[in-house]
Amino acid sequence: MATASHAADLFATSRRLGELGLCRATLLVDRRRVEANVARFAARALAAGAVLRPHFKTHQSAAIAGWLRAAGVRCATVSSVGMADYFAEHGWDDLTLAIGANPRECAAYDRLAARIRLSLLVDSPAALAPLLAGLRHPVALWLEVDTGGGRCGIAWDDTGRLVALADAVARAAVGAVPHRFGGLLTHAGHSYAAGDAAAAAAVFQQTRRRLEAARTAIVAAGLPVPRLSAGDTPGFAASADWSGLDEARPGNFIFYDLMQLGAGACREQDLACAVACPVLGVYPERDEAIVHAGAVHLSGETMRRGGHRIHGRLLGLGASEFGGLLAGWEVAGLSQEHGRLRARTAAARAELVRLGPGDQVLVAPVHACLTCEQFGSYLTVEGRTLARYRRG
Amino acid sequence: MATASHAADLFATSRRLGELGLCRATLLVDRRRVEANVARFAARALAAGAVLRPHFKTHQSAAIAGWLRAAGVRCATVSSVGMADYFAEHGWDDLTLAIGANPRECAAYDRLAARIRLSLLVDSPAALAPLLAGLRHPVALWLEVDTGGGRCGIAWDDTGRLVALADAVARAAVGAVPHRFGGLLTHAGHSYAAGDAAAAAAVFQQTRRRLEAARTAIVAAGLPVPRLSAGDTPGFAASADWSGLDEARPGNFIFYDLMQLGAGACREQDLACAVACPVLGVYPERDEAIVHAGAVHLSGETMRRGGHRIHGRLLGLGASEFGGLLAGWEVAGLSQEHGRLRARTAAARAELVRLGPGDQVLVAPVHACLTCEQFGSYLTVEGRTLARYRRG
Repeated sequence: MATASHAADLFATSRRLGELGLCRATLLVDRRRVEANVARFAARALAAGAVLRPHFKTHQSAAIAGWLRAAGVRCATVSSVGMADYFAEHGWDDLTLAIGANPRECAAYDRLAARIRLSLLVDSPAALAPLLAGLRHPVALWLEVDTGGGRCGIAWDDTGRLVALADAVARAAVGAVPHRFGGLLTHAGHSYAAGDAAAAAAVFQQTRRRLEAARTAIVAAGLPVPRLSAGDTPGFAASADWSGLDEARPGNFIFYDLMQLGAGACREQDLACAVACPVLGVYPERDEAIVHAGAVHLSGETMRRGGHRIHGRLLGLGASEFGGLLAGWEVAGLSQEHGRLRARTAAARAELVRLGPGDQVLVAPVHACLTCEQFGSYLTVEGRTLARYRRG
Repeated sequence: MATASHAADLFATSRRLGELGLCRATLLVDRRRVEANVARFAARALAAGAVLRPHFKTHQSAAIAGWLRAAGVRCATVSSVGMADYFAEHGWDDLTLAIGANPRECAAYDRLAARIRLSLLVDSPAALAPLLAGLRHPVALWLEVDTGGGRCGIAWDDTGRLVALADAVARAAVGAVPHRFGGLLTHAGHSYAAGDAAAAAAVFQQTRRRLEAARTAIVAAGLPVPRLSAGDTPGFAASADWSGLDEARPGNFIFYDLMQLGAGACREQDLACAVACPVLGVYPERDEAIVHAGAVHLSGETMRRGGHRIHGRLLGLGASEFGGLLAGWEVAGLSQEHGRLRARTAAARAELVRLGPGDQVLVAPVHACLTCEQFGSYLTVEGRTLARYRRG
């Protein structure tokens, strides 16, 4: 490992980025790491008898979706109609739109439902009624349940509302358009704030228990047994045993990022996307270099590390794979187009004075999903460009 | 005003957004407000004898650039080669690339310099040398000066370095390729942290004094008299008198935003862009509604207001113009795709319970530049779509 780490040091990485012909902030992906990340979660889903329905909002790329397909993934989660249209066009015929249904999108939902197996979410009669009135093609209707995240969904223990809405959905299944009752779906987003793997695992356990309790209430009311769907990378990464769930919808796990690393959800060698950034200037008097990569490239996401805020760390790049994180370097600040690299150790400061305009660094992002959203394409470490969906 | 405010209340705004045919997060612009904002700064530039060279990274739209052209603007600032290419294709033939020159972009700079009047920035011999070696067409070379922002540039009082680099640039002007010595350029980005108009005006005064001192040192060394260029919306908004500067490069002022409003740089009726967001659900038990507009739409930017962090406020929309900010409403939180609207007053809570899926709200962003970056186009309040440059 010492050799590998040396082989992908700051300057070797700069040379390698130059060999790839880069000159502007570019989003890189390491396919082997993605495949390893996917294989791990696919095995857990298989062992639990759960369907792996990854959230594609993390990568939003048909090419990367193809890597997941090769690992056996057959259905996916998306978060907008545009994203659903994009993946439907690329052969994905079973998609869950994991955001509360929007009555104004009824026509778009209906066009999708005519082509693919579409799952929609509702958490109120006000959201359900326009769907029942407007859809001409059947969809699967899932009840969104709030298991503690406090964002969307009916509270898991609000039996009255849960049963009433489940009943309304079950009735819809025998109406003119035979919609299906999908089940109960939650996003335990509070696992992102858990802080460590044990706490994330506790959120996972609680989420499963609460979904099961909601299911029990619905079955007790004489309604069909609902399937259970959950998905958040921290909870699913921290829990080897997913049994009891019918469906797993994590998304971030294909790339991971510094936030997940900090929360114990992944290892350094799982970080699978990063941004190549050109160095514009070096300012040894304040231990900084400036790169042309700001909030419009890396997103404004930040996290605490060692008592201060960071916006990224430097990653090595070997001949055809990412290396390890480079010690002593951080992205300490961002403005719209500029990033501040800070050398925090004597060794890094010794490297800093050897850097200059024309060099390039590779930045591991704090939050992969938001960083990838800033780019229209990926470049593989082998130099192949992969297209990506983009909102208009 | 009471009538206008009433006419653009929460529900009238929702109806108006529906009449525009919107159903997804959409970036709206009020042309009349942009024109008024531009007219104000154009008049100040004229009075000072300064060239107004607005930073186009804020809007990145050829159509909106056309509104500025109609106000007499003939040259512009950009922050990437891609943006320069885009505006050059749309007839802008005098562009300053206001970010340190990147040696790896030499070929792209040269292609631009063959077509338009191009200004580039350098702040070190290491950045200058590859330009002199690589460019076949003349450009204007500006010395980037750090007047207190602490990001890029030679310190304004580091006479030795300033004179040495100015000398190198002046020599380049009589070389094989007759580059021009543009002058001294600074971005006083610390004015964004000034907090109020008086403090921003003090930054402006200091910036001008420091540029003048740097110029004096260069002239004293027997070098050509450099032009002075500065540009930051807070400082230029707080200072009616721009005299002494040759060039003004603010960008945000065409739209402004809540950050500028909070810093006293603009008035409510100057806010010229906002994001229409569909309501997905209402949660009166926690005074919240959820909209389908998250960090991927509004950017993650946040600011303090009344002791808590906000990500936006609600704006009214009249028949063909933005209204005022709607009291009592805030965007209190964002995840990737969801935004949390919070009703903070009794009146707003009374409105909240009347909201529902299918309604839409208009969110004034915290930082306009980063929010606009998240969209591929604008919609005018009259319903016309305007294309926008987008990085690949």
